Amino acid sequence: MVGKSSGGNFFEDFKLGQIITHATPRTVTGGDVALYTALYGSRFAVQSADPFARMIGYRAAPVDDLLVFHIIFGKSVPDISLNAVANLGYANCRFLKPVYPGDTLAATSRVIGLRENSNRRSGIVYVQTTGSNQHGGTVLDYVRWVMVRKRDEASAAPQAAVPQLEARVDPAGLAGAVPPLDRSAYDVALSGAKHFWGDYTAGERIDHVDGMTIEEAEHQMATRLFQNTARVHFNSHAAGESGCRLVYGGHIISLARSLSFNGLANAFHIAAINGGRHVAPSYAGDTVYAWSEVIETAEIPGRGDVGALRLRTLAVKNRTSADFPLMADENSYEEGVVLDLDYWAVLPR
Amino acid sequence: MVGKSSGGNFFEDFKLGQIITHATPRTVTGGDVALYTALYGSRFAVQSADPFARMIGYRAAPVDDLLVFHIIFGKSVPDISLNAVANLGYANCRFLKPVYPGDTLAATSRVIGLRENSNRRSGIVYVQTTGSNQHGGTVLDYVRWVMVRKRDEASAAPQAAVPQLEARVDPAGLAGAVPPLDRSAYDVALSGAKHFWGDYTAGERIDHVDGMTIEEAEHQMATRLFQNTARVHFNSHAAGESGCRLVYGGHIISLARSLSFNGLANAFHIAAINGGRHVAPSYAGDTVYAWSEVIETAEIPGRGDVGALRLRTLAVKNRTSADFPLMADENSYEEGVVLDLDYWAVLPR
Amino acid sequence: MVGKSSGGNFFEDFKLGQIITHATPRTVTGGDVALYTALYGSRFAVQSADPFARMIGYRAAPVDDLLVFHIIFGKSVPDISLNAVANLGYANCRFLKPVYPGDTLAATSRVIGLRENSNRRSGIVYVQTTGSNQHGGTVLDYVRWVMVRKRDEASAAPQAAVPQLEARVDPAGLAGAVPPLDRSAYDVALSGAKHFWGDYTAGERIDHVDGMTIEEAEHQMATRLFQNTARVHFNSHAAGESGCRLVYGGHIISLARSLSFNGLANAFHIAAINGGRHVAPSYAGDTVYAWSEVIETAEIPGRGDVGALRLRTLAVKNRTSADFPLMADENSYEEGVVLDLDYWAVLPR
Repeated sequence: MVGKSSGGNFFEDFKLGQIITHATPRTVTGGDVALYTALYGSRFAVQSADPFARMIGYRAAPVDDLLVFHIIFGKSVPDISLNAVANLGYANCRFLKPVYPGDTLAATSRVIGLRENSNRRSGIVYVQTTGSNQHGGTVLDYVRWVMVRKRDEASAAPQAAVPQLEARVDPAGLAGAVPPLDRSAYDVALSGAKHFWGDYTAGERIDHVDGMTIEEAEHQMATRLFQNTARVHFNSHAAGESGCRLVYGGHIISLARSLSFNGLANAFHIAAINGGRHVAPSYAGDTVYAWSEVIETAEIPGRGDVGALRLRTLAVKNRTSADFPLMADENSYEEGVVLDLDYWAVLPR
Repeated sequence: MVGKSSGGNFFEDFKLGQIITHATPRTVTGGDVALYTALYGSRFAVQSADPFARMIGYRAAPVDDLLVFHIIFGKSVPDISLNAVANLGYANCRFLKPVYPGDTLAATSRVIGLRENSNRRSGIVYVQTTGSNQHGGTVLDYVRWVMVRKRDEASAAPQAAVPQLEARVDPAGLAGAVPPLDRSAYDVALSGAKHFWGDYTAGERIDHVDGMTIEEAEHQMATRLFQNTARVHFNSHAAGESGCRLVYGGHIISLARSLSFNGLANAFHIAAINGGRHVAPSYAGDTVYAWSEVIETAEIPGRGDVGALRLRTLAVKNRTSADFPLMADENSYEEGVVLDLDYWAVLPR
Repeated sequence: MVGKSSGGNFFEDFKLGQIITHATPRTVTGGDVALYTALYGSRFAVQSADPFARMIGYRAAPVDDLLVFHIIFGKSVPDISLNAVANLGYANCRFLKPVYPGDTLAATSRVIGLRENSNRRSGIVYVQTTGSNQHGGTVLDYVRWVMVRKRDEASAAPQAAVPQLEARVDPAGLAGAVPPLDRSAYDVALSGAKHFWGDYTAGERIDHVDGMTIEEAEHQMATRLFQNTARVHFNSHAAGESGCRLVYGGHIISLARSLSFNGLANAFHIAAINGGRHVAPSYAGDTVYAWSEVIETAEIPGRGDVGALRLRTLAVKNRTSADFPLMADENSYEEGVVLDLDYWAVLPR
């Protein structure tokens, strides 16, 4: 705290059950969508073209799920993770309603867990963050846990409370953001592939082939577009001699998702993120490739139109993904792996 | 082909007369227009301001012709040129209807020619690509030919078929995308120049004076905005030791067109592209200048409001264009020339 | 002048009282707003969210004041400062009406002063530039003075005329662009801070804490978005051996303004700019920090809802602003200071 400016919250500032309303609601526009396209080159027809989306049952082309996630996540940064030592994980992320250009997003977080570290210098904060639209409807929620510095090592530790988190979102709750789909109107020439839900099988691996090289201006513009204020992404001066700005982890997720169009062109919606791990940092100059494994296929109760694939998408850098790089041994990843993401995608059946 | 992902078509995959519907229709928005402005700095009043466009007869400010071209072209890349050895040329490109924000563009290509190369390793594919709007109207079409690798040298060669292509689009068909123009409402203070169609003469040369330096983030964002997936533009890792990403040829065309405002401010519409040659590759760090020669002036039958100039615009890099760099000898261009574009522009009379 | 292309005006081309209509009116869209967010990461709730803006009395989220300024300024460049030796200053900049997406901006300048320099090689041109919307309403005006080269040293000098400029805009005229504010609807959780007009006192200093590193692609895209054609920002080839492209001064102002959210979150509107000095040039790679001093607090006659703070915001580069870097001695700034801006911001009372 320097006069009226904020230095963010420290571990002692969080109380179990506390609800934090994050600043700066955001009206999402076609401008945001265009920038998202320019930054990631996404090609899913549902998000790209109003008539395609309308033909199958949407009101208009919905905003890319990850753009919604990044905007909600960005709002939480000044309150939750400005003094983070590390972003440890997220879980139970559910996309609940479509977001359309013109909708306004706002975010709140509830503190659902706290545990001081044994070194007394930091602690782990668990929050459930909720993104809502201008009608008060929840469009997204997720749990996230972060290691946050203490302001003062001598502060008393709170009673430890660690939430139970499911390893995966129950498929029964998926696809709430997908309207009843008119499958007969789903044009596979326009969507770019003829593979539907039933064509994928557990254990199947898909190389997404292409790679994209990251530039400083790109990840900075992306992260600012999301109004994410985490300092490590923008400031080479503060990074010391290396001058290295860390690429926002969500930038890698969006790159991997965009690359995954090649092999998953009809998996047009991310219904849930079960968890994810940023295995290694990425920097400007790195080239990101991606591959996916189908972990599980699931019907969605009451939905004869769509089914869900549980996917594990790995992003790797500075090596191709044709050989499906994964674990080096039980505990560590192969050289080059930067992201291990576990999520549910929805496809037409 | 790696599992369900696509490696693009090879020469053997193309059949004469085949029609390919390209994936991912695209609703063009004010966001795309803003990005186009940020990437090229275009200043033509018709495309910049709704009231200016409406005063002279448009429904609103139309989308820049080249943005439309790049989007349609981008859609064709995954099907036509992913395995291209070289983009050899294009011809007979006609802009037929204005595109407005909110319109949705889709693309199809018809194979109109095939000829295997004598080395049997590749062949030339000629396609006519058509861009249409959400009403099924053709907004753009053009012919393009590409040298594409064969999957297997031993494959049988198709019957050779090479289309006859006109050296220039007939001026009689130009300006279909321009509404009847209210010339009295065309404000030369706002358009930026007082030179109209009748003020230009064949043989006249115009230096466009300024230069723009290309950054990696710029050409990558541009090319992704166009949903163009050609690998050479995005991947420094795959480029090997040089790490050089090739700038999309259309990026150079748009830079040259934007620079050409200085000297051609009232040439607000590209009605047709007769042909173009990417004389040399461009890379980030290159500075692009441009100059134009008026090749021909033409009346457009039935149009007393507008006339056409056939322009040859040369883009050069890392040297100014004040001395009109062109041919070094009969067969080769002067050092620094990167683009030789032959097109019809429309101006008020 | 090279054929039909323009080389810009020289000192001799300006006449006292002359009115210049600048080219290329511009319809501002949500796309421009999204790019502005991506370039600067601004987080003021009023400009970010339609419902927030509507709740307090706006018709919709207004366009950021500085985006309006940059667009109007950009239009004046080709006519006023293409042959500038130096941009010397600006004064009496007043933001008079809100601008909303869909509005069209146009600019004119009146020459209000001329004085040849004693070396006879250049002279100072004073212009009052006015930005208007599609209804002819003035949204912005300001005075700017520039040292412009003479075409010919031998040209006769005009009668010297130097306008009297106020050191500060009278607070009585501020906040014309702010509708009567429904203070009870102004949500401090969403705005990001609880400090209102009455909480600030003259002499108070605020460090804005964060820094942002500038990339070439960012400042080039920004400056082109503003359709600003000043050559020094885009052309590394013309910059000679250094290859250094100068960052548009307005880019620094926007970075500083965006950083100032941390400490001035409720200062949602720039009502006037009293003056500003670009103390030193900035280049890609520089990291910009900012701090502000409250110079004066002022009531606005007839406005019980809002008050004004006269702020002096300093941007510094490649050093933090925690120690409030300012003057080294009476005449020179401390190392690293790049901007000294004096403006009126409006806050709820």
